[in-house]
Amino acid sequence: MWEAAEHAAFYELDNLTAIIDVNRLGQRGETMHGWDLDSYSDRLRTFGWHTVEIDGHDVEQIDAAYREAESTTGKPTAIVARTIKGKGYSKVEDQDGWHGKAIAEEAVEELGGVRNVIVDVPKPESAEPHRFEPAPSEWPQYEVGSEVSTRKAYGEALAALGGERGDVVALDGEVSNSTFAEIFRDAHPDRFFEMYIAEQQMIAAAVGMQVLGWKPFASTFAAFTTRAYDFVRMAAVSRATIKVCGSHAGVSIGEDGPSQMGLEDLAAFRAVHGSTVLYPCDGNQTAKLVHAMADIEGISFLRTTRSDTPVVYEPDEEFPAGGSKTLRSSDDDEVTIVAAGITVHEALKAAETLAAEGTQVRVIDCYSVKPIDAETLRGLGTPIVTVEDHWAEGGLGEAVLAALADLEEHPPVDVLAVREMPHSGKPAELLAAAGIDAEAIAAAARKLVTTRAPA
Amino acid sequence: MWEAAEHAAFYELDNLTAIIDVNRLGQRGETMHGWDLDSYSDRLRTFGWHTVEIDGHDVEQIDAAYREAESTTGKPTAIVARTIKGKGYSKVEDQDGWHGKAIAEEAVEELGGVRNVIVDVPKPESAEPHRFEPAPSEWPQYEVGSEVSTRKAYGEALAALGGERGDVVALDGEVSNSTFAEIFRDAHPDRFFEMYIAEQQMIAAAVGMQVLGWKPFASTFAAFTTRAYDFVRMAAVSRATIKVCGSHAGVSIGEDGPSQMGLEDLAAFRAVHGSTVLYPCDGNQTAKLVHAMADIEGISFLRTTRSDTPVVYEPDEEFPAGGSKTLRSSDDDEVTIVAAGITVHEALKAAETLAAEGTQVRVIDCYSVKPIDAETLRGLGTPIVTVEDHWAEGGLGEAVLAALADLEEHPPVDVLAVREMPHSGKPAELLAAAGIDAEAIAAAARKLVTTRAPA
Repeated sequence: MWEAAEHAAFYELDNLTAIIDVNRLGQRGETMHGWDLDSYSDRLRTFGWHTVEIDGHDVEQIDAAYREAESTTGKPTAIVARTIKGKGYSKVEDQDGWHGKAIAEEAVEELGGVRNVIVDVPKPESAEPHRFEPAPSEWPQYEVGSEVSTRKAYGEALAALGGERGDVVALDGEVSNSTFAEIFRDAHPDRFFEMYIAEQQMIAAAVGMQVLGWKPFASTFAAFTTRAYDFVRMAAVSRATIKVCGSHAGVSIGEDGPSQMGLEDLAAFRAVHGSTVLYPCDGNQTAKLVHAMADIEGISFLRTTRSDTPVVYEPDEEFPAGGSKTLRSSDDDEVTIVAAGITVHEALKAAETLAAEGTQVRVIDCYSVKPIDAETLRGLGTPIVTVEDHWAEGGLGEAVLAALADLEEHPPVDVLAVREMPHSGKPAELLAAAGIDAEAIAAAARKLVTTRAPA
Repeated sequence: MWEAAEHAAFYELDNLTAIIDVNRLGQRGETMHGWDLDSYSDRLRTFGWHTVEIDGHDVEQIDAAYREAESTTGKPTAIVARTIKGKGYSKVEDQDGWHGKAIAEEAVEELGGVRNVIVDVPKPESAEPHRFEPAPSEWPQYEVGSEVSTRKAYGEALAALGGERGDVVALDGEVSNSTFAEIFRDAHPDRFFEMYIAEQQMIAAAVGMQVLGWKPFASTFAAFTTRAYDFVRMAAVSRATIKVCGSHAGVSIGEDGPSQMGLEDLAAFRAVHGSTVLYPCDGNQTAKLVHAMADIEGISFLRTTRSDTPVVYEPDEEFPAGGSKTLRSSDDDEVTIVAAGITVHEALKAAETLAAEGTQVRVIDCYSVKPIDAETLRGLGTPIVTVEDHWAEGGLGEAVLAALADLEEHPPVDVLAVREMPHSGKPAELLAAAGIDAEAIAAAARKLVTTRAPA
């Protein structure tokens, strides 16, 4: 709550009025502050709010407080109202043990019988949300064979998307120079919102913004999206449409260590109702997925990588959500490697090594982790190696297994994923230590081929 | 941070001193408050702290502040120190753009060359953490055929565990009358910690307590553990050993609606390194799992159910982590149903129905979702229906699929799980609507048998 209080004051939201219903009682007994109204209003004032303390049962005082809130400028107002839970029904009034319980019809009697009071509430003068001016610019394009990080491509694509559409806005959690949301900020300073290190408030603000019809893109490190998991969950329950970008995913970030790595984000975002989970491996793919996200309903999540990766797709290639790309295939494929993001490049290297040994393998870029391209995966007809820079639980490997689950003829699948707590090190060292680099992929593929070889 | 500030003051932790290093700079520019020390100390004082503002480069002031903190009683102290980032190295001093970057050796030169200063720090007088007095009581036992909720059994078992061992403590997030942690509170009031509605602080406090060698059990609704996901993640990175209980899991809570349901907790906790995820279906099983949790290393999570469920196990049955129970089997089993928690009872009902139709099915209670009993699951030799009161992603179904992944002969698996946003309703209605009740299980099993039947 204090993240919200701080941001509301910082952005001088004088059109915001909060009502704190201080009824003394929590679910299991008295709250920490009971009826100490000052404990709320003193704090809110140091957070930059105007406060009014009232008796929450006194209509005159409520009315006066609303007028005071309306006339306060430069800061939000909190009306801190002392109330009595269950007031007017003597059996439960100010009593513990009634949280979430239905009360009897006799309560209506004691409250004076059935009444039907209609209050006319003034309508807002205008319900038209602000629209920003589009200012079309070049859409980013990357040359095949060049190198760019997908996080950089995210920033460049988002800036271009903002140029194309007046409804796209961006928020970031004080890491815009890492997520590259700063490229959007520089291109569209009037619709970039710095949320500082307050990931919960960042998601809450994005949910608010989408009510206005805006398309909010909120970015931070993938690891730090876990701080806002409850807010993402509740955004889905509220049927909100927001876009989240988690950068610096996986052990491939290298030296910063496991606290920064984002190894549970795919599991967390897959387990959000109606979510779309995208994980690009190159700059052109990232640009197309960012473009697509603008019109995806519900919670969509884009996972980006810290280090530069080779561009493998032409700029005009299409990447619909729910699709996949077969990057390498032949009629003689003995194994299929299913990868996404950083591991696509490791898979391609492994395929080269195996081809030199005479083993043909298929390589599938499963950039859409949810929805996943079940049709392609179910038709492979070869053993499968999945490989992901993520914990083994709930990520790409399990998404692939779920797509294959009810097959009568089910190929064996070897799930390569991070299984030990990573250390700090060079990206290549950490990919090797986790057993998700080209060498580990090739070894897993060889094993599946050998197992299947005729005696 | 404000959750922590509030609790530290509420519990009058005058042996706690916080140092706020106010260097003005965040990662991508100036912080919200820059060098405005008052913005920190004013807030902390309204939260109940004593504060001291100092020049953080002045050793005399630092020393005086520490003495003031030591002599302050009844409240924690915050030393709010104005500092200059990179002070003494002119190239970076107070400059933006140096976050997380290594500085050159010339910095050592400018700072006066290599020095080796040793400071003797006084040791704490005693490093012996407090131990509570055991007071053995009856271990809860439930009669087969009677009904009790697993959340109630959690509270009763936890109270008994506290009686048995002096190192067990409990924390709860203002819902102890729902999680039944209140049974522990009443039995051991001196080692129950009310954390109010502050799930992040609850996990943080538990991590602190386990440093003392205590065994903290922290409970709230499974849904609300998502609020603390980052803290759980960081607890694992820190190699902490804590126990979390999430109650009111799944659509089976009924009327309270999806915001309270906890449908992503298995996915979230499975994707925590080294975690143990347990999901009991009856009172005796719950009691044994609570007992086992006391000695499980790392993050362990117990998922409990709101409604009463039939007791199916004798009180002396054992339930090791990593195990499973085969509740029904024959030599003629055509399908296996793998369930956990509330769905075990639906699976047993489905098995009865199918048996009456002449189809024998095996029923496995997979109470240990992680580690999962891979050996049993891999040896089944029948098609499988998995059924869980959880989203389809990252839960029991995918855990089963992961255990089977690399099998050469892989049976088809039908994953029954919650796939649409639930409404409010009666538990039985919601289990039916989600397609995870006895009828849905029986239908899925019939389909697998029919598919496999010889033409």
